[in-house]
Amino acid sequence: MSESQPRLSDILEAETILEGPSSRRAFLARASALSLAIPGVGAALAACSPDSAPRGDGSNRTSTERGTASEAAQDSLRHRNSDSKLDSTLLKGARHGNSSATGSATKDAQQSAYHRYDPALPPLATGGRLQVHFHAREVPLRIADDTVVAAWTFEGDVPGPIVHCQVGDTVEFTLTNEAVVPHSMDFHAAQIDPKTAFRSVPKGQSVTYTFKPKWAGAFMYHCGTAPVLMHIGSGMYGAIIVSPREALPAAKEFVLVQSEFYLAELANGVHAFDYQKMLSTLPDFVIFNGRPNQYIQAPIKVKVGERVRFWVVNAGPTHPCNFHVVGEQFDTVYLGAPPANSIRGVQTWDVAPGGGMCFELLCDVPGEFPFVNHGFGHGQKGGIGFLVVEA
Amino acid sequence: MSESQPRLSDILEAETILEGPSSRRAFLARASALSLAIPGVGAALAACSPDSAPRGDGSNRTSTERGTASEAAQDSLRHRNSDSKLDSTLLKGARHGNSSATGSATKDAQQSAYHRYDPALPPLATGGRLQVHFHAREVPLRIADDTVVAAWTFEGDVPGPIVHCQVGDTVEFTLTNEAVVPHSMDFHAAQIDPKTAFRSVPKGQSVTYTFKPKWAGAFMYHCGTAPVLMHIGSGMYGAIIVSPREALPAAKEFVLVQSEFYLAELANGVHAFDYQKMLSTLPDFVIFNGRPNQYIQAPIKVKVGERVRFWVVNAGPTHPCNFHVVGEQFDTVYLGAPPANSIRGVQTWDVAPGGGMCFELLCDVPGEFPFVNHGFGHGQKGGIGFLVVEA
Amino acid sequence: MSESQPRLSDILEAETILEGPSSRRAFLARASALSLAIPGVGAALAACSPDSAPRGDGSNRTSTERGTASEAAQDSLRHRNSDSKLDSTLLKGARHGNSSATGSATKDAQQSAYHRYDPALPPLATGGRLQVHFHAREVPLRIADDTVVAAWTFEGDVPGPIVHCQVGDTVEFTLTNEAVVPHSMDFHAAQIDPKTAFRSVPKGQSVTYTFKPKWAGAFMYHCGTAPVLMHIGSGMYGAIIVSPREALPAAKEFVLVQSEFYLAELANGVHAFDYQKMLSTLPDFVIFNGRPNQYIQAPIKVKVGERVRFWVVNAGPTHPCNFHVVGEQFDTVYLGAPPANSIRGVQTWDVAPGGGMCFELLCDVPGEFPFVNHGFGHGQKGGIGFLVVEA
Repeated sequence: MSESQPRLSDILEAETILEGPSSRRAFLARASALSLAIPGVGAALAACSPDSAPRGDGSNRTSTERGTASEAAQDSLRHRNSDSKLDSTLLKGARHGNSSATGSATKDAQQSAYHRYDPALPPLATGGRLQVHFHAREVPLRIADDTVVAAWTFEGDVPGPIVHCQVGDTVEFTLTNEAVVPHSMDFHAAQIDPKTAFRSVPKGQSVTYTFKPKWAGAFMYHCGTAPVLMHIGSGMYGAIIVSPREALPAAKEFVLVQSEFYLAELANGVHAFDYQKMLSTLPDFVIFNGRPNQYIQAPIKVKVGERVRFWVVNAGPTHPCNFHVVGEQFDTVYLGAPPANSIRGVQTWDVAPGGGMCFELLCDVPGEFPFVNHGFGHGQKGGIGFLVVEA
Repeated sequence: MSESQPRLSDILEAETILEGPSSRRAFLARASALSLAIPGVGAALAACSPDSAPRGDGSNRTSTERGTASEAAQDSLRHRNSDSKLDSTLLKGARHGNSSATGSATKDAQQSAYHRYDPALPPLATGGRLQVHFHAREVPLRIADDTVVAAWTFEGDVPGPIVHCQVGDTVEFTLTNEAVVPHSMDFHAAQIDPKTAFRSVPKGQSVTYTFKPKWAGAFMYHCGTAPVLMHIGSGMYGAIIVSPREALPAAKEFVLVQSEFYLAELANGVHAFDYQKMLSTLPDFVIFNGRPNQYIQAPIKVKVGERVRFWVVNAGPTHPCNFHVVGEQFDTVYLGAPPANSIRGVQTWDVAPGGGMCFELLCDVPGEFPFVNHGFGHGQKGGIGFLVVEA
Repeated sequence: MSESQPRLSDILEAETILEGPSSRRAFLARASALSLAIPGVGAALAACSPDSAPRGDGSNRTSTERGTASEAAQDSLRHRNSDSKLDSTLLKGARHGNSSATGSATKDAQQSAYHRYDPALPPLATGGRLQVHFHAREVPLRIADDTVVAAWTFEGDVPGPIVHCQVGDTVEFTLTNEAVVPHSMDFHAAQIDPKTAFRSVPKGQSVTYTFKPKWAGAFMYHCGTAPVLMHIGSGMYGAIIVSPREALPAAKEFVLVQSEFYLAELANGVHAFDYQKMLSTLPDFVIFNGRPNQYIQAPIKVKVGERVRFWVVNAGPTHPCNFHVVGEQFDTVYLGAPPANSIRGVQTWDVAPGGGMCFELLCDVPGEFPFVNHGFGHGQKGGIGFLVVEA
């Protein structure tokens, strides 16, 4: 490994985030054993647990159900996934196991049914208290008629379910890890010690914490386990929308999570995510809510005269989302927490990776308005959908 | 074609924007015939119509004149340009025809004279009504002493002419397509159904629509025909400046359109635009108003004590414009519509691709102030000019 | 050199910035002699002056001391550094001299001690007047236990020393160039004619100018000598923090300068900066204050209840800094000059390359909060540190 490359210790050091500097030395000692293994890890994801076929529309809601994992497939995955710090002795073998989808995973991939990700903002919880229980799961996810990806997910979908609460609500959150590698949860809407709340948990274990969002906005959530680029890049993110206590103007509200997909070559019917490609920053897809151009086929529909509010989260991992609606202008973009912090009369605004913003427009003209990432070198790779305004 | 690559259907799907979901199936059927042809299309542009040599200073104004096309050259181009969905059977041949500039196009290229793009904001139309008639034309455009590009243009120049109006004015716009491939026009200042107004028109036909800008600002216009990355990347964009009805502070006003050029190897004296390079997002030039460093040779000049207002549009297609004036600071940047939505005391601000913004500074110090894109990895590739403040 | 590549004349034209258009022709004549030499220049930097080992903590302050240069090593460097316009006849040889670190430079590299860059904002100067004297120096700089880079610096460190003043103060600045190639200084906080104030000076000479910052904020300073991408990319930048005259809320104040490192292969114990990599825009490191992950090992510490103010400068040269604190939210981000121009309730905001911004949060929760560049494709390459909030 050339010394001019980023070192594994740098890539993995984010792990220290969750465990504190005190354990850094021990961690690096472990990491040194991995030094050559990371490049092959993306392709090693093709074996997926069979309990996690994506469900139909409406599935992107919080859930407490748990699948029954196939321990055989899990064992297969464990031997191939170099992100696990628990079995580093197996990692060197993983470098040579790139076409690693098992027969059952391939069958799972074929059976994985496409479903549209519902962009509608779910209703607010009542009583000022939400209980949210997510499960980290590895699933084959059909993102187009001809494409299935080996995703790391929250609740079996990419993005994970939309969480909707209000400033000052109490969110009681639990993550249960059903995947082989450790995972964690970082809510950008929480102000909390990440060393404990956002810590990684191994398979079969859970972490629970409670927070009260202080600011309104469109916030990202994501797995923060090292290397965080891989965990975000493999599908572990979603949106928590925090509405202000002061009512915003009446509107149809939608949530769009932009993300980039970096995919390995097809192997046994499934594309693994490719960590080296993530580092190259040249994505294969840049998409809203996990499927290329899904809202061309099944547009977002409103009626003329209605106000539309897009809560846009940019999960990245790397590029900005230059959000634009063709044929329309945003009368309001909230750069900070709504209902303040707004600017008016905007054609395009960039949401930073790891950021979120709220965009409003009044649909006073009927028609078919594409919403896009106007940075077309990336944005054209699947980042187009339709807002249909019906007369 | 690897399944991990963006599929042609994704790249071309933007076409659906202009025709609605109903025609999607038919479109994709057509597109499948093209599946291997797109990679070679950039280089196929080297043959250009001979009627379109750029004109001298002052030419970047709206016009109704029409050139007389050389049908022979147009025929040559038709056979090589794979963006045309009308002759897909010819496309496979185009992949092998990379050095395709005809003798007459080469001669045109040699005769193409360099002209500076006048950055001055043209005066407002009187009477609250503008008639703007643009023609889509393919021309060889000399952007430097030693460089001619095969451009797709509005009115024979890159950027196209500056349009200047006021909030609430009526803009009656007509696009006549003199080029072989279909083109269209998307004004970011318009609120209008893009399905009809921004539709593509084939050669020899026109589209007309009327709009009343609702917000002040620096707005992009561009061809929206699929693949939009190619049409923007090949030169089809410009600026429409919408002044607010409330007077802004008296100022010398200039328009800067940043864009990226991705060029194929020289063939017969002309550089075609290279679509694969556009997808690589590593441009050859990042420039203001279509020529590398043109305002070093012929600076923008004002007098000490004057206020300068830059209306900056970032046509992209991909990278931000991190606008900065060396030796100066912006006292005002309007993030949204002027005269509101401003911030003060700014060294550098990024304009998103597909966006526009208004920057003001008071020139109370004489000197020679370079304006730049301070993201120098890209910005140094031609994105430097001089603002000379004369005592 | 392919004509579709950016030409040397474009790359070098920024030089004209400092000397005005009148000298352009003579400059280009000189530059043409260099035309093939630039690609090899990065690697030619491995020979460094031996008088400039980085000093211990607290060294990142302004200084008037001067090292005693080893003329032998300087001679060696002069023969290899193709940025020098004074000895262009030697440049063609330099292309083949990639492993050019001399024995003494290698010894210097081994002796270069790692030191943490102190992020604390230094106290304000008294009396409304600062005298700042920087020296341009080439030094081997240890940025990690196992990595030494051949840096171009101000005062022997990357970033250079933090300058802290107040709106309306008088800053009397002198740059003395101890390096072989010409250097200059561009303060983004100054409003001044760059043609004279920011001019390049050859070895042994000085330039002096005086300015009064008009706006509060976090401003970049950098060498502006052509090609500016190389001078910024090789380490010549830092922060000048201009506090407003109206007091901001009491806070612990820190300065973070993000930058990208593009490194050549190791040669004789030192990594030169690699100009071709800078143009590729794919960095090896993206870091705060010049060392990968230095604030993981030695965190920034505050006490619970304290307000923290980060003055963030993004030196680039190319990518945005998507600034985020894990487990926290910024209650205030100043988009323009503090104390106005703020937005509230922000998870992540992007600072443009060449820009700066001020971020505040109230540390009302104890814990260990990583601050990151959330654009993880780049940001994960060293851009992580800890803010520890002690109970």
